[in-house]
Amino acid sequence: MAFYISQEFSEAEEWFKNLRDEIVSELEKIEKNKFPEVSWLANEDGGGNRTIIKGKIIEKGGVNFSSVGGKFNKNMADKIPGTMENLSYHATGISVVLHPKSPHIPSMHFNTRYLETEKQWYGGGMDITPCLLFEKEKDYHQQLKSMCNKHDKEYYDKFKKWCDEYFYLKHRAEPRGIGGIFFDYLFLQKRIEGETRKENPNFDFVKDVGIFFKEYAINLINNLMNKSWTPEDKDTQLKKRSRYVEFNLLYDRGTRFGLETGGNVDAILMSMPPLAKWD
Amino acid sequence: MAFYISQEFSEAEEWFKNLRDEIVSELEKIEKNKFPEVSWLANEDGGGNRTIIKGKIIEKGGVNFSSVGGKFNKNMADKIPGTMENLSYHATGISVVLHPKSPHIPSMHFNTRYLETEKQWYGGGMDITPCLLFEKEKDYHQQLKSMCNKHDKEYYDKFKKWCDEYFYLKHRAEPRGIGGIFFDYLFLQKRIEGETRKENPNFDFVKDVGIFFKEYAINLINNLMNKSWTPEDKDTQLKKRSRYVEFNLLYDRGTRFGLETGGNVDAILMSMPPLAKWD
Repeated sequence: MAFYISQEFSEAEEWFKNLRDEIVSELEKIEKNKFPEVSWLANEDGGGNRTIIKGKIIEKGGVNFSSVGGKFNKNMADKIPGTMENLSYHATGISVVLHPKSPHIPSMHFNTRYLETEKQWYGGGMDITPCLLFEKEKDYHQQLKSMCNKHDKEYYDKFKKWCDEYFYLKHRAEPRGIGGIFFDYLFLQKRIEGETRKENPNFDFVKDVGIFFKEYAINLINNLMNKSWTPEDKDTQLKKRSRYVEFNLLYDRGTRFGLETGGNVDAILMSMPPLAKWD
Repeated sequence: MAFYISQEFSEAEEWFKNLRDEIVSELEKIEKNKFPEVSWLANEDGGGNRTIIKGKIIEKGGVNFSSVGGKFNKNMADKIPGTMENLSYHATGISVVLHPKSPHIPSMHFNTRYLETEKQWYGGGMDITPCLLFEKEKDYHQQLKSMCNKHDKEYYDKFKKWCDEYFYLKHRAEPRGIGGIFFDYLFLQKRIEGETRKENPNFDFVKDVGIFFKEYAINLINNLMNKSWTPEDKDTQLKKRSRYVEFNLLYDRGTRFGLETGGNVDAILMSMPPLAKWD
């Protein structure tokens, strides 16, 4: 059975890809440098491209686009909507992780994705991880809330809570960072093959999350990049980053899913911090 | 139902505890320094003590003894012998992880343990992880083999293979280090309450593994600690250590078991390297 790629998929794919390029371009302006784009092919179908940022401001970062397809194995399909009769899927998404050199600038993470099985839905979110006191914490959450409220007054509270619950290190009883928003199975619905939607209001929210992340991250970096720090601040950052590593390897669904399905290790682990310290 | 502590358990407990103290004492001689011993109490029953080594030669190490008891939860008990009718267990063990500062000295790991449920058995092993060319690799395996052969001619091949299979990073298709020996469910047998064994030949092998580790590790450190290294060697070491982190958090049964059962986080994660780099 051929697996139809919908117009919605193609639109999401193109939009994620453009956003990826824009984010890379903004980071290159900050770094006053160019970073190579690396393309990769998935085992089954599709592939992606990513840019590793290793600069003076961003100690290590990755800006990744992917569009892949294939068949879930039975075991995995149990957890995924719309795979009862057909294990095929297409997934496209963008993911960004930035670990700035300065301990004043939080690590930042953003990801949005669109999936098609016999159903279709969006997922994603953004969250940040300061290691020193982050004075703009309240303002950060307020800005996110304003963005969410434009789409649905219930989104912010729901997605913030989801984020706090997800980015939590149970073994240490501590949050990974100060959270943000996290959502999945958004606009989950049966996919009707061949249907062409004239409009796609659902995607508007996902687009706004992407635009918000881009602008927020770039502004924050520009505002904090010239603030000086001490060796003690850097040490605090390295220790905080060990928690980032622990979260990603112990709990992160995307990381575990990727590694278990034989995904591209470098792409999956691009989220790892450049240097982490266990004391 | 009271859960009887056998003579064998008490003997193992005492032996592991003494070995722990001896290893700490040898490391203190090397470091020409004393390191504090920290005692901890388990949630349910028992506890342990550990010494964190942070020295000039050992960048970070932990030497840990524990003796704990309690009841497995149903879910976990499925994987553990002798828990069909009674979920109670006692476990005692020693574990050591050493991450030397010099990139010439491999990271070293050793652990032996004795468990009692309605059955009883031993487990453990040792393995080492060089990050630069390790000239003594062949000799290391040969020495381990000689030690094993004193007890059973089949042990070495079997336990080396087990070690190679266990300490393997599937997602990277690479081994963690150069292996060693690994065994579990050794001398697995039904436990007969109240039975006093005059002799315990089984424990002799486990003792020899401990003595071997202590002597091998101390000799190796003494032989290599004065060899100089370059910043590139150190960088290679930091990158290799990221694989150590990945293994421990993604695959190590002890780590995952400990974190999932709410064990002492510091004791469980004492195996983490001091500093690790993802490039």
